[in-house]
Amino acid sequence: MKILVTGGAGFLGARLARTLLARGRLQGQSIERLVIADQFPAPPDLASDPRVEVRTGPLLSQCADLAQESLGGVFHLASAVSGECELDFELGLRSNLDSTRALLDALRAAAGRSNAAVPRVVFSSSVAVFGPDPAVPLPKIVQDHTLPAPQTSYGTHKLICEHLVADYTRKGFIDGRSARLMTVTVRPGRPNGAASSFFSGIIREPLAGEEAICPVSPEVSHPVSSPQRTVDGLIAVFEADREAFLGRLALNLPALNVTVAQMLDALERVAGSAVRQRVKFVRDERIAGIVANWPQGAQGERALRLGLTPEAHFDDIIRQYIHDCASNPAALKGLAS
Amino acid sequence: MKILVTGGAGFLGARLARTLLARGRLQGQSIERLVIADQFPAPPDLASDPRVEVRTGPLLSQCADLAQESLGGVFHLASAVSGECELDFELGLRSNLDSTRALLDALRAAAGRSNAAVPRVVFSSSVAVFGPDPAVPLPKIVQDHTLPAPQTSYGTHKLICEHLVADYTRKGFIDGRSARLMTVTVRPGRPNGAASSFFSGIIREPLAGEEAICPVSPEVSHPVSSPQRTVDGLIAVFEADREAFLGRLALNLPALNVTVAQMLDALERVAGSAVRQRVKFVRDERIAGIVANWPQGAQGERALRLGLTPEAHFDDIIRQYIHDCASNPAALKGLAS
Repeated sequence: MKILVTGGAGFLGARLARTLLARGRLQGQSIERLVIADQFPAPPDLASDPRVEVRTGPLLSQCADLAQESLGGVFHLASAVSGECELDFELGLRSNLDSTRALLDALRAAAGRSNAAVPRVVFSSSVAVFGPDPAVPLPKIVQDHTLPAPQTSYGTHKLICEHLVADYTRKGFIDGRSARLMTVTVRPGRPNGAASSFFSGIIREPLAGEEAICPVSPEVSHPVSSPQRTVDGLIAVFEADREAFLGRLALNLPALNVTVAQMLDALERVAGSAVRQRVKFVRDERIAGIVANWPQGAQGERALRLGLTPEAHFDDIIRQYIHDCASNPAALKGLAS
Repeated sequence: MKILVTGGAGFLGARLARTLLARGRLQGQSIERLVIADQFPAPPDLASDPRVEVRTGPLLSQCADLAQESLGGVFHLASAVSGECELDFELGLRSNLDSTRALLDALRAAAGRSNAAVPRVVFSSSVAVFGPDPAVPLPKIVQDHTLPAPQTSYGTHKLICEHLVADYTRKGFIDGRSARLMTVTVRPGRPNGAASSFFSGIIREPLAGEEAICPVSPEVSHPVSSPQRTVDGLIAVFEADREAFLGRLALNLPALNVTVAQMLDALERVAGSAVRQRVKFVRDERIAGIVANWPQGAQGERALRLGLTPEAHFDDIIRQYIHDCASNPAALKGLAS
């Protein structure tokens, strides 16, 4: 089985690729080849795996070749992030809308050339498809069937691609489904300019011994998931029978709905009060305004039916991050030894 | 004021153009120029109006020039119909998705060149955005805020374009809104292959003295609107302040929700029992199956707030058709003189 992971050099994509390679199998078949398509080079551990083929460059320019290939499955994660797309409208159109369309058309062309089964495709959508609608207030907890009303280009393009995936599937060109990712935390590295970036920052920076600024009040609630739980969700959505989706092909991945105060209580339990003290509250009206328009939580009834559940405690999400940092002591130098 | 009507040579587009020219004004301004863009030539009465400029050819190939223009308003009606798009997937993508995107990008480019106010844009969407969702049954009467789940490429592309129009508006490139058209009846001419074609046929053919086949049972209910009420709705949506939409920019146009039996009772009242007798019921499982997945009616709460109401009686819809046929006696030769 040959699998394509777009965005496979990114934070989530690389974790997905590592998880797939460690499993060695997907949907009962052995993974012989794993193609990582990304505009950035793949991490060395992935690039050196004999099953991995790295293709570096914009996805849009890779699609003509993909139309000549026979793929067993696709995880389509490549995407510009929300903040970037608000600043650069063309970038959002190109990276999130045109690239997905070109990928779907390449898979359609490949399906037209061959008698093989069409590839299964998991599209990584986002909880950003939901936004406030003054006439129909956004429920505090969004469900699979909540009416999407995106308030960003990023959310708009994700929603549009969900509908393209559904229509290409209905027509028999692919076997597609869309998984709406929650805010994935704790992200490693530096703040990325996304309005949600502080959700990772208020955990990551204190653990590294640095001060962190929380721009919203402690009562703010948000749907989150750990990186590994998110990757496991993507794989489960891939492996599920189409019938399990009950017609609609987009579902919310499981979310732990948690307030900032609960996140910091968990940080104190896991890492001690000195670490928690490094978080200062300095309200940022711009960010607080954006976050006020977001759902306070999400539920994934269809995901639950696939056996997917959210983390039980935010403590587990922090522990996963600490475990991931085992080879990077600088990231944990704020922890009392 | 310069107005563009795409699809302006079509049945609805030409009626819209005639109505606009007869009014002479839109949104308090005089209409100096009305551009009719259509792949087919415009009717002679329109082409000969000194205010009209006819551009014949695919919309997609006209967009580069549109980017150099300054338009005060756009009615975007050009579209391949539902049945065609199911038979020819590429046609649907090109005519309904790519053309709309190219039009929006042309307007965006024009806005970037000029300091003038961005053009107001009415996109003609469709009740076809609604479809059945096994997990969340379609309500019998769809509302503005019913969750769309299109089951055709046509409905998918209409929904996608609604979201593009909303996002280009949010970004300030256009001042857009989307009006979801109900099934427009009575359409003149020949059956057009759309699954909904019989809704016009069971009125039009008997009035012309021909037998008509109704492929569904008399209890089938459907949301309809007359051509003129639909055109008036498009103009009202154009003229409404953006605030009247309360955030969400797509609304259902008013619908008269009526059963086939009620349509035929109206036909008998307006045209006599001999005319009604020309309708035979011969069930067509394919069409009946498609229609069974459609909403049985629609409500337009937001349209109502704009002062738009549906026809009170189907009789009025038939009378409008008879009035429209004044210059075409063959269309009415089934009427007792």
